[in-house]
Amino acid sequence: MGTDRSILAVGSVALDNVRTPFGRVSEALGGSATYFGAAARFFAPVRLVAVVGRDFPERHLGLLRRLGVDTSAVQRASGRTFRWKGYYGYDLNNARTLKTELNVFSAFDPQLPETHRTAGTVFLANIDPDLQLKVLRQVRSPRLVACDTMNFWIENKKPSLLKLLSKVDILLCNDSEVRELSGEYNLIRAARWALSKGPKVVVIKKGEHGVACFTRQMVFCVPAFLLEQVYDPTGAGDTFAGGFIGTLAKGGRVDAASLRRAVIYGSVLASYNVESFSLNRVAGLKYADIQLRFKALRAMTRF
Amino acid sequence: MGTDRSILAVGSVALDNVRTPFGRVSEALGGSATYFGAAARFFAPVRLVAVVGRDFPERHLGLLRRLGVDTSAVQRASGRTFRWKGYYGYDLNNARTLKTELNVFSAFDPQLPETHRTAGTVFLANIDPDLQLKVLRQVRSPRLVACDTMNFWIENKKPSLLKLLSKVDILLCNDSEVRELSGEYNLIRAARWALSKGPKVVVIKKGEHGVACFTRQMVFCVPAFLLEQVYDPTGAGDTFAGGFIGTLAKGGRVDAASLRRAVIYGSVLASYNVESFSLNRVAGLKYADIQLRFKALRAMTRF
Repeated sequence: MGTDRSILAVGSVALDNVRTPFGRVSEALGGSATYFGAAARFFAPVRLVAVVGRDFPERHLGLLRRLGVDTSAVQRASGRTFRWKGYYGYDLNNARTLKTELNVFSAFDPQLPETHRTAGTVFLANIDPDLQLKVLRQVRSPRLVACDTMNFWIENKKPSLLKLLSKVDILLCNDSEVRELSGEYNLIRAARWALSKGPKVVVIKKGEHGVACFTRQMVFCVPAFLLEQVYDPTGAGDTFAGGFIGTLAKGGRVDAASLRRAVIYGSVLASYNVESFSLNRVAGLKYADIQLRFKALRAMTRF
Repeated sequence: MGTDRSILAVGSVALDNVRTPFGRVSEALGGSATYFGAAARFFAPVRLVAVVGRDFPERHLGLLRRLGVDTSAVQRASGRTFRWKGYYGYDLNNARTLKTELNVFSAFDPQLPETHRTAGTVFLANIDPDLQLKVLRQVRSPRLVACDTMNFWIENKKPSLLKLLSKVDILLCNDSEVRELSGEYNLIRAARWALSKGPKVVVIKKGEHGVACFTRQMVFCVPAFLLEQVYDPTGAGDTFAGGFIGTLAKGGRVDAASLRRAVIYGSVLASYNVESFSLNRVAGLKYADIQLRFKALRAMTRF
């Protein structure tokens, strides 16, 4: 029994309350798995693993399904849905969290259906590394495993996180996270530290300053696509991951050229995401839009 | 009587006292004209216009001359040399100024010798915009004029700065400076505002986050060359300007392809500059080193 083309993604499906200088949304569809799935679906079949509460609007799951995302393993538990409340100032690179309510997520015990255990690619979005490990153990023989993390787990679950790193092919995280994780301020040194813990690829997301991708043999950097108006950066990192992992899952290779293209597709998807709140922009995208901006980003950076 | 191939650069020649997490220097050769000249000399003849005090070590002028920089219009005035004292934390992107002593610079009244009035290219480094205008008026018919500025002049000499902008082809400044100047946080809008004031090209320097170059028809972005060790960012912006303006002066064209190459040469020179204090790294560079890193930056960014 082999692996299949699909991407299994575990993470949050959430209700977000977000304010930026350009507007606000209440109880909007959000969460790391949501953003990841809405982007990755352009490249490969996506199956989400997550939990929502009784209060979660069925129309949100309906939207994900209409986008082609498999939500059959999104459990509905009694209690309230995971909620994030935050805001951004004009410096849109830094989210200020006002409140995080774990709610049904605090008792999340992911059990993969048999159909989900043959996924060829696994994306472990930013959740408790023990949960990430638990999900990973249930997938039979994935070809490619990637994870994200955040400062909270670095500070509170470092042993589990290090165990996870020894089992993944790709680590994605922010510049501040890899600095904290490694204890190195310099990004090359920080990436080298992370590469020594297991991953063959380390992708450092720098928000409006772009992305740097490291392997033992390669460094690849790209600026973010410059936009005249950024409305809401929420979910940009997970949207990037969706484009990045989606591209790798579709191509089936993780060589230098594939990684570079994957970083660009991730950047393109993220650039669309920040042009509106929630999935408002990415849900309506066509593949031709993605190709158009891929070319525009090349024109913006080529010399 | 036409113009010649040389670049006339007016700015500071200074003594710097700098501390970074990786070391410190006292009374080191610094100043915007110094850094500019040490970089631009790889591409075209450079003539500096500046003033130093009686205390300025002759060996510093000797170094500039050995690098091929014309210092015949660096006046020696009675009094102390311009001094800057500052430090950087691990976030090397932000200089903290401890003390600025204008000294002989406060009475600087630049008078160009006849030999300097035929320069084809003029670089007006960050000084009082009234002085920048005064120098510019003395150059007969330059083909290319560029200026830099800083927050102090934006806040205290805005009318003069706007007059200057109407007379230059290229504005170079930091992201925070163009934001303050334009009142626009978004860089595309800020650049568009600046382009409406006269310059045909606006170059926004973002330190470790690279450079964005705007014309009415083009946006070009490049990340900074990633380095494993940055010792001292002092002078990086002026060193960038030296590589950038030098390349344009050498090529004699300001089309899109030339601007892109110029941004890359500027980035390459700046990346070498930050690898040591003062001119320690750039003074010893060979042109082959520049070509090597040009190729390395292409390899780091191409997809």
